[in-house]
Amino acid sequence: MLKFYHAPWSRSSGVHWLLEELGVPYETEIIDIRAPGGVPESYRAIQPNKKVPAIDHDGTIVTERAAICMYLCEAFPQAELAPAIGEKARATWLTWLVYSDSVFDPAIAAKAQGWTYNSNSFSFGAYDDMVQHLEKTLSSRPYIAGDRFTAADTQIGSGIYFVTNILKAFPDKPVFRDYLARLQERPAYQRYLAKDAAATPRGAS
Amino acid sequence: MLKFYHAPWSRSSGVHWLLEELGVPYETEIIDIRAPGGVPESYRAIQPNKKVPAIDHDGTIVTERAAICMYLCEAFPQAELAPAIGEKARATWLTWLVYSDSVFDPAIAAKAQGWTYNSNSFSFGAYDDMVQHLEKTLSSRPYIAGDRFTAADTQIGSGIYFVTNILKAFPDKPVFRDYLARLQERPAYQRYLAKDAAATPRGAS
Repeated sequence: MLKFYHAPWSRSSGVHWLLEELGVPYETEIIDIRAPGGVPESYRAIQPNKKVPAIDHDGTIVTERAAICMYLCEAFPQAELAPAIGEKARATWLTWLVYSDSVFDPAIAAKAQGWTYNSNSFSFGAYDDMVQHLEKTLSSRPYIAGDRFTAADTQIGSGIYFVTNILKAFPDKPVFRDYLARLQERPAYQRYLAKDAAATPRGAS
Repeated sequence: MLKFYHAPWSRSSGVHWLLEELGVPYETEIIDIRAPGGVPESYRAIQPNKKVPAIDHDGTIVTERAAICMYLCEAFPQAELAPAIGEKARATWLTWLVYSDSVFDPAIAAKAQGWTYNSNSFSFGAYDDMVQHLEKTLSSRPYIAGDRFTAADTQIGSGIYFVTNILKAFPDKPVFRDYLARLQERPAYQRYLAKDAAATPRGAS
């Protein structure tokens, strides 16, 4: 059994999309991350910081988005959402999956909070360097880790979607709009957006 | 050829240690991350945010610490520093490798900077939750991802060492001291500490 701990329109959206791409059955448990009294303490047994997402696969719990993506691609290789070990593209794929969690997300959040800092102080470095890197990469190829769609696109793509269309806080550049348009052609992407919208109207808190 | 882009006593220390554990030849290029004029722009071709570490393995560049660790464990499986795909411990290992980059490091840095924030705003959540999770985990087993030493220990272990002994900004608890003592018994750990000390005296900026 594959169980998905999720909050609509949150940091778990990319894993939601990936689950739709995998085409395997899963069950969703919604965690109210915005509950006035805080997330129930009982959830800490699944996720130590009481964050989403988390998955429970036949009793194996995985947290941290990049780790969940790697785990799911290993558990369901038939979906072919990861370059194989030894393939040249593997290094780029691993790098982008981690970059999504370790640089892309916190750099955006720090900017949204109005924090100023010396880029040496934080592992995520400077926001402008991150945007420049994304722009350069997506100008050179159709998908974030190469010529084909992978699990890394569910993370970077859902992140760009969220920060562009919901937070409305990302540079509005053709290269990013084209990337999102390419992703939106995918039936699994449409299914995930529809499921989140059915669970909670877009942007509701 | 395996090339390692490094700065002594920095966020690249854990990968330095891992390279010593692997027991394979590598060449180190020191990047002066504290240069008054900033890191040379030419380094951006290797690392988009001009951070360390990065590796170049026969022309394949990998950045982001968790990604580098996963890549190296895949490239050099004979070192047995990762649970195999399908092994029960694999999920825990993946989670801790990513957690080290996505939660442990930025939560410590945010605290060191004196930032206050709602834990919902940042993917890394609350500092206290992170410390509690580390303490609970290392009270239950000798190594961060289970009963044996893995590449995840080079990341979490070098991080705890740095924040305890250099930043002097981590709770001084027996469980963390015991963990560091266990790690320091490793010859590869001693070699990495000696190499960083030879390159730059400890704590020098």
